[in-house]
Amino acid sequence: MTTEVSNGVNVQALLEAREVLKGAPEAAQFTWRASSKWQSGVHSTTTIQNFFGLGQEQSHKKEAVLDADHPEVFAAEDNDITPIEYLLVGLASCLTAGVASVAQNRGIQLRSVEATLEGHHDIRGILGVDSDVRNGFTDVKVTFNIDADASEQDIEALVGQSQKRSAVFGALTNPTDITVEVA
Amino acid sequence: MTTEVSNGVNVQALLEAREVLKGAPEAAQFTWRASSKWQSGVHSTTTIQNFFGLGQEQSHKKEAVLDADHPEVFAAEDNDITPIEYLLVGLASCLTAGVASVAQNRGIQLRSVEATLEGHHDIRGILGVDSDVRNGFTDVKVTFNIDADASEQDIEALVGQSQKRSAVFGALTNPTDITVEVA
Repeated sequence: MTTEVSNGVNVQALLEAREVLKGAPEAAQFTWRASSKWQSGVHSTTTIQNFFGLGQEQSHKKEAVLDADHPEVFAAEDNDITPIEYLLVGLASCLTAGVASVAQNRGIQLRSVEATLEGHHDIRGILGVDSDVRNGFTDVKVTFNIDADASEQDIEALVGQSQKRSAVFGALTNPTDITVEVA
Repeated sequence: MTTEVSNGVNVQALLEAREVLKGAPEAAQFTWRASSKWQSGVHSTTTIQNFFGLGQEQSHKKEAVLDADHPEVFAAEDNDITPIEYLLVGLASCLTAGVASVAQNRGIQLRSVEATLEGHHDIRGILGVDSDVRNGFTDVKVTFNIDADASEQDIEALVGQSQKRSAVFGALTNPTDITVEVA
């Protein structure tokens, strides 16, 4: 039993949601939304608060306001991190949330979970130097450091299961269909 | 000539960088880095400051600290936006930066650039309800609203060129190679 384990994840609610959504696929259709506004140069501000899910409009408790810019080596003002670094934030946090959820479900008490990420990027693609170079990451490496009441093997399995169910890992490792329009 | 146009992008420096990098591909190899720390439940904090590029260690002016969590409808505490929403931040800001850069290069004065994004997501994938449902977005729709000294056709072309050279659009629409390890 997992009663003594507390990683702060309400796994029971998630397992119940899984059962409910088996018979109600329409409730599982979420829409995440963002609005962005150009500031100047390559600096923009994106806000996020509302989304749709479980058949109705939903809202985060507070609005998130996130700036992105480019560093001085790109001849920009470095008001904040770059757009591509936001992908690393999403990846790190999604895999970490997965590790906590799976650990809770498997009765493994976590003490600490840290991850370091490296995204390799050949900027000749985005600068148009060589059209054979991809615009996105060449590859991304994620390294977890986990302290938990579990064997090395169980920790490896936790991380493996987290990847298997990660929204962001899935979105990045598979082609995502994106349509861009002008209103 | 584009002398009267000012979108705040130093296109001259970017064009010079393109020339320099043609003969120095090793300088174009960047590494973007992030470190994340689990807080509790599905809440984590990611920090970003240093990166590598142009052959040496680089640093943003300030450290970025970004929290991610899940909303109350996921039985979580909603301390901040979800990991998958960070992908929308990256996509919005990358395409917007591209629009500003291409406009500058083409001598088009921008007055405002706004984008709204919708990421559709069937959460039956991540909950393990149906293994045929993908974990990531079903699809993403980006709608630009651009006020600029240009024809509709030129604005469409701006947005098209921005997609063509966008790091984040490229990373999401193509499969990205991600390796996850336990230290």
